[in-house]
Amino acid sequence: MDYYRQHRQDFLEGLKSFLRIPSVSTMVEHRKDVLEAAGFVERELREAGLNQVGQIRGAGHPLVYGEWLEAPGKPTLLFYGHYDVQPPEPLDEWLSPPFAPEIRDGNIYARGACDDKGQTYILLKALEGFMRTAGRLPVNVRVLIEGEEEVGGEHIASYVAAHPERLRADAALICDTEMFAPELPTICIGLRGIVYGELEVRGARTDLHSGVYGGAAPNPIQAVSEILCALKDRDGRILIPGFYDRVRPPAAEERAAWGRLPFDEREYLAKEIGSSELTGEPGIPVLERVWARPTLEVHGIRGGFTGEGAKTVIPARAVAKLSLRLVADQRPEEAVQQLEAGIAAATPRGVTAEFRLIHGAAPSLVDPSSPYIQTAARAMTEIFGHETVYIRSGGSIPIVGLFRERLGIPSVMMGFGLPDDNLHAPNEKFHLANFYRGIEAVARYLELLAE
Amino acid sequence: MDYYRQHRQDFLEGLKSFLRIPSVSTMVEHRKDVLEAAGFVERELREAGLNQVGQIRGAGHPLVYGEWLEAPGKPTLLFYGHYDVQPPEPLDEWLSPPFAPEIRDGNIYARGACDDKGQTYILLKALEGFMRTAGRLPVNVRVLIEGEEEVGGEHIASYVAAHPERLRADAALICDTEMFAPELPTICIGLRGIVYGELEVRGARTDLHSGVYGGAAPNPIQAVSEILCALKDRDGRILIPGFYDRVRPPAAEERAAWGRLPFDEREYLAKEIGSSELTGEPGIPVLERVWARPTLEVHGIRGGFTGEGAKTVIPARAVAKLSLRLVADQRPEEAVQQLEAGIAAATPRGVTAEFRLIHGAAPSLVDPSSPYIQTAARAMTEIFGHETVYIRSGGSIPIVGLFRERLGIPSVMMGFGLPDDNLHAPNEKFHLANFYRGIEAVARYLELLAE
Repeated sequence: MDYYRQHRQDFLEGLKSFLRIPSVSTMVEHRKDVLEAAGFVERELREAGLNQVGQIRGAGHPLVYGEWLEAPGKPTLLFYGHYDVQPPEPLDEWLSPPFAPEIRDGNIYARGACDDKGQTYILLKALEGFMRTAGRLPVNVRVLIEGEEEVGGEHIASYVAAHPERLRADAALICDTEMFAPELPTICIGLRGIVYGELEVRGARTDLHSGVYGGAAPNPIQAVSEILCALKDRDGRILIPGFYDRVRPPAAEERAAWGRLPFDEREYLAKEIGSSELTGEPGIPVLERVWARPTLEVHGIRGGFTGEGAKTVIPARAVAKLSLRLVADQRPEEAVQQLEAGIAAATPRGVTAEFRLIHGAAPSLVDPSSPYIQTAARAMTEIFGHETVYIRSGGSIPIVGLFRERLGIPSVMMGFGLPDDNLHAPNEKFHLANFYRGIEAVARYLELLAE
Repeated sequence: MDYYRQHRQDFLEGLKSFLRIPSVSTMVEHRKDVLEAAGFVERELREAGLNQVGQIRGAGHPLVYGEWLEAPGKPTLLFYGHYDVQPPEPLDEWLSPPFAPEIRDGNIYARGACDDKGQTYILLKALEGFMRTAGRLPVNVRVLIEGEEEVGGEHIASYVAAHPERLRADAALICDTEMFAPELPTICIGLRGIVYGELEVRGARTDLHSGVYGGAAPNPIQAVSEILCALKDRDGRILIPGFYDRVRPPAAEERAAWGRLPFDEREYLAKEIGSSELTGEPGIPVLERVWARPTLEVHGIRGGFTGEGAKTVIPARAVAKLSLRLVADQRPEEAVQQLEAGIAAATPRGVTAEFRLIHGAAPSLVDPSSPYIQTAARAMTEIFGHETVYIRSGGSIPIVGLFRERLGIPSVMMGFGLPDDNLHAPNEKFHLANFYRGIEAVARYLELLAE
């Protein structure tokens, strides 16, 4: 571990160079920058001494690959990360420019500092240490870093599906989640899945005058409202028949462990949500609601006249974006069918409703008793000096489901971000202490795995 | 009546010029066009030879006034119309551009063709005929044309309230309604009132990630839906306490007369609405639902992400435009209070809801035995060759209530539009035969009134 402690300044300088590249994958004008970031990762892997280093070109931004498979009889890990970042807007809310990394109070501020350049760099530096000092790794490692995580990750999805043999491994290691609290080493073992689509409701042939026809003509906005209210009650309970049938409740130990986590509901409401009250299913603790319960959310809606002033129209159509978040053992395909049936049953007379699926991802739940998880927890506990906790995340990381489905492997999600790291928001940061400890924790994980 | 038959081509060209002016009163960028339309009306009145012609400037768009009061001992009519029009959107549904009038199958297509430029022009041309041929009118006439009818008509409301003596008359004549069926001369004796406003619902401080917070954070779009569903049931019955208390049911004779009108529910559904089914209160005939029952309609809604693809956001706010249509003897102020109380009672936890009133108007009901109504019916029966029928309209013409309240006069609503004229919708049209007959019917009305 000496190498890691002695090279912190180098790691920091390297991370700054990585963060200076505005690799915003969603914006065409940053295409060159995205490619530059891919080149940066490729160079790092090459300089670390990995084999087969190169870029995998495809429909979208390149994947960067490298491997070191010279530890026969030892496990093989698949390292995953992403070099693309979210757009930095709104720019005027940043205290320092998003692509000019600045250190303040022990944090490095820049877009991608935490999500996910900082955490991807942890993986690269952990490998570098072994290669520079021992000339070899304790276990076999494949590295696959993508550049489209923030835009749906289609390239990696098709690559993993098409070439599972080239990625053969025993487990994946992903550093793209967060610690539950500062100083609290954290492994994420569950993610919600998702089914996201568009609900379109059509009524009359064209927009109608609400004076002339109000009382006889169907109103698609009212119909969307009626459908939404028929799908979910005011307590957040989803009313779609059969929807909860496959929901696996958290085990008693897991629930008990969540109860011991340092979580203050009032602080969460005040600091993170900022509304008058929390909502959701009564009698179910907040963490369980966001980690282990499925949800139905409307993300956007439009219909009719929304300009300034008044227009007395009954619109001909309304469109809502909505999603179901799924938990183990729900299945996206089945959820879509249930949702469609629910919508059909809830559609009021006079309108037609159609749901168009945009994307879906399965939920995932890793068995915490897996040796890959247990060993990761040991490594983190050692480095951080606190017992590692297991959490879930309410979000969806489709790659985890993909690795399980296509490669048949669990994902170990060691997260080093903090809850206030401002992911996807202005003033994204990464706590430098977690950056350095992250590198050591990953390195220690490889050592322990080799034992 | 010869003059009217000989000048049809001139009338048509004049109407086209009027329709080419995009006088959309709700849009700031059309301010100049609205003024141009006011100038157009002013010029027409001047050229017809009326006195005191001019624009009355005030807070909003100008009123155009003219008068001819040289028939002592004869009744005085107050002609009312409006030169402003609804926004033309959605533009891509128009077969010909909304402000490039086009004749197809005996109809003139343009925004405002029927509502209300075409019908306002009827009034102007009827006057022109007498002045050009006899140099005088059979009765006294004041003309007051406004430019804010589609945005609430605040200017005319304050003017009428402030200067009732300048508008002294025995009855108002308004051509802004429709014929019950082609060939069926029609007088409208009742209008619904309206209360129109914006409902804003706010939840979390900022947009939130639906994965991380879904299940605990309030969703303002869902909240708007819940409020809408709490205000009106799936049968169109309004659930606001006390809301129906003042509703006056139509008299037995009026109901019976409606039953004799040529109305085919299936044809109405197929031709006018174009949806799979009609909606509204069960057990109440369609005409009564749209003429004599109050309604609640959502006119527009927006919130969250509505672009292409997917964004997993829980929006911080959502806004809906909604209105209540009122019938005699409901009162707008009371309806607003009831609505606000209903919204407050229906607002789910975690969000705040605010209703902002944009405009309101009282319902109105004219006594059909008034001589001004009876004479108008005679004139129309003569010109159209069919017995005149009495209907109500589900729309709101606030000026009618204002004239009754402030000037103490009834409004005679001779309507020349057709049910399929697409008011407020793409491809608005006006049947040219009704345009020409309308001019003659108004002229004949003045003659008969003078007898």
